[in-house]
Amino acid sequence: MNSRASATDFGGRAVREALLDSGVSNGDIEEAYVGNVAGTAQDQTGVIGQAVLREVGVTGIPITRVENACASSTCAFREAYKTVKSGSCDIALVLGVEKMSGVPTEVALKDMSGASDAQVEGAMGMTFMGVYGMRASTYMDRFGDVREELADIAVKNHANGRANPHAHLHLDIDREDVLESRRIAAPIRLLDACPMSDGAAAAVIAPGAVAEELVDDPVYVDAVEMSSGHYLDSDREYWREELDERVAKRAYDEASVGPDDLDIVEVHDAATIGELMHYEGLGLADYGEGAELVRNGDVMRDGRIPVNPSGGLKSRGHPVGATGVAQLCELVWQLREEAGPRQVEDPSIGLAQNSGGALLGEGGVSTVTILSTR
Amino acid sequence: MNSRASATDFGGRAVREALLDSGVSNGDIEEAYVGNVAGTAQDQTGVIGQAVLREVGVTGIPITRVENACASSTCAFREAYKTVKSGSCDIALVLGVEKMSGVPTEVALKDMSGASDAQVEGAMGMTFMGVYGMRASTYMDRFGDVREELADIAVKNHANGRANPHAHLHLDIDREDVLESRRIAAPIRLLDACPMSDGAAAAVIAPGAVAEELVDDPVYVDAVEMSSGHYLDSDREYWREELDERVAKRAYDEASVGPDDLDIVEVHDAATIGELMHYEGLGLADYGEGAELVRNGDVMRDGRIPVNPSGGLKSRGHPVGATGVAQLCELVWQLREEAGPRQVEDPSIGLAQNSGGALLGEGGVSTVTILSTR
Repeated sequence: MNSRASATDFGGRAVREALLDSGVSNGDIEEAYVGNVAGTAQDQTGVIGQAVLREVGVTGIPITRVENACASSTCAFREAYKTVKSGSCDIALVLGVEKMSGVPTEVALKDMSGASDAQVEGAMGMTFMGVYGMRASTYMDRFGDVREELADIAVKNHANGRANPHAHLHLDIDREDVLESRRIAAPIRLLDACPMSDGAAAAVIAPGAVAEELVDDPVYVDAVEMSSGHYLDSDREYWREELDERVAKRAYDEASVGPDDLDIVEVHDAATIGELMHYEGLGLADYGEGAELVRNGDVMRDGRIPVNPSGGLKSRGHPVGATGVAQLCELVWQLREEAGPRQVEDPSIGLAQNSGGALLGEGGVSTVTILSTR
Repeated sequence: MNSRASATDFGGRAVREALLDSGVSNGDIEEAYVGNVAGTAQDQTGVIGQAVLREVGVTGIPITRVENACASSTCAFREAYKTVKSGSCDIALVLGVEKMSGVPTEVALKDMSGASDAQVEGAMGMTFMGVYGMRASTYMDRFGDVREELADIAVKNHANGRANPHAHLHLDIDREDVLESRRIAAPIRLLDACPMSDGAAAAVIAPGAVAEELVDDPVYVDAVEMSSGHYLDSDREYWREELDERVAKRAYDEASVGPDDLDIVEVHDAATIGELMHYEGLGLADYGEGAELVRNGDVMRDGRIPVNPSGGLKSRGHPVGATGVAQLCELVWQLREEAGPRQVEDPSIGLAQNSGGALLGEGGVSTVTILSTR
């Protein structure tokens, strides 16, 4: 969504939908965490959680904003989850919200560049798409040309997104459209890149026993893992998603599952090469083998392991501080078989991977969340 | 401190001092929370925690930025405390860091105004000092003129701050200097207001048994409570610190102490009227009686209940995202009797109160932390 609506408008709407869905009222919320990067189009840059939540009557409780660039709302979800898990509260709310339109594009871009490694990479003129371009070049230098498969990832995600009423870009594109689109940072082209979006997503978290009282079909949190990287490790192999690997291993261990057990996956496809590399970092394919999942249709909505049935960042959009919880909402809808025309067949375990911050130096964060119907 | 130093420089220094003090090494830190409002003078606006902490070798762990305006680092401390308390990590680091100089003053002021109630009060032209001015007027309308006592609070805090090598403003002022200083927002004058500062503060948090292994003189966390307000409650009495009252009650209950048990207090004196009203909200005095604590010397460094022995925001300074942890550092130094010439006599229980965000509509947060030597 990009519109005249304010963060308060669409943030409030997301909260209301989460409350209706979970059967709790605003007064039942004991603690709230809000993921946001840049404020409400730059006017409300502090205590934005309080400013948005007051509009839906969620006041007088602890409200905390969490920021970790594009992974902000997964990190907010993690704090809410830890709070509920520790027993210090029964019903927590998590909201991701971001308003990126309504300011000059250069202001929004400056906000985004400030979420990269601004002090080192930024000073050298690096941008996020520049980083993705360099990683794609490194990857292809090692494993061969995957430009067609990258284009097919964009085509897949837009096809999925056309079936998602929540998606920002309902584009009907084919491989040639991607390969012939404007070059952004070689080999990344315009249609390899996600848009800047407005959006919000919200979830209510409660202990299992409480959730089972509230709704007929709770979805369970089996793992939420997050780590920052090692930043500018000169030995680092840039074709490798070491940070994903490390975080995913902890999440798989926590949930007692492996990549072969997953029925549905949402990954951080800010650029198509990101999606491909996340396949490998998460262990869905060996290094260098990710493109095969595209070629053989495994990651299609009706494939062996559907990836980004929501449309991903590419089509659903990338309202940065909202993206992580939007991924989790998609998993919940899919696991409950409420995803309508984009429903994948009979899923019971889903994984979401959400990245944030500097990528080349791997200084940001990767998060992996595993949800299931049990 | 206001200087050419970067957030990375002084943030890193604070972390190094915390590591030295606690006897842990950077590799021992399992999780870190970073309080910050505006980025590192606007270049690094996302994942700032990762950018600062990599300079001291704290990488590869979960690092989360927490923002709640001027209470950001107390809220970061709260997340770290909850994480340790829940048993999910043994050694957590909390850092508050803010770089406010080095950008045009209007940019820093815009960042600050974005932490007020930007959507309602901001749109009406309200500023933080405007809010404090209105609250002071309301207070004095009800309880009588306290301008001399407010001036004496400024004089007290600057006298304390002159004994604090960490303080930003080492001013030697008297009551007349304050009363004759430039009017900012009647009845607030320039010397009633805190400065904008650069600064950082850090702490290491561990379970009691771990802390007792690490150091000879651990300080214990007896309570960390936080809440947001009710925002624009039209029945609200603006001379009353209802939010403080509510949060302090929970903290006193949690710690099993009352205001009479406190030996030392740090409060959020962004303006002198703030300090006075916090006396009352925290129960150190009845409503309308706070000025008496100033008149009879109770809140002096050698008084019955010393308030802001560090110099407070007024003299120590107000690097917004660092202030909360700076208050906690002062309590720790005082409780360990390491505060040198500003040491209060034999304290064993201390309280810090830190506010953030919109004040008139009480939409921000108040936090109350109680530490002790047990």
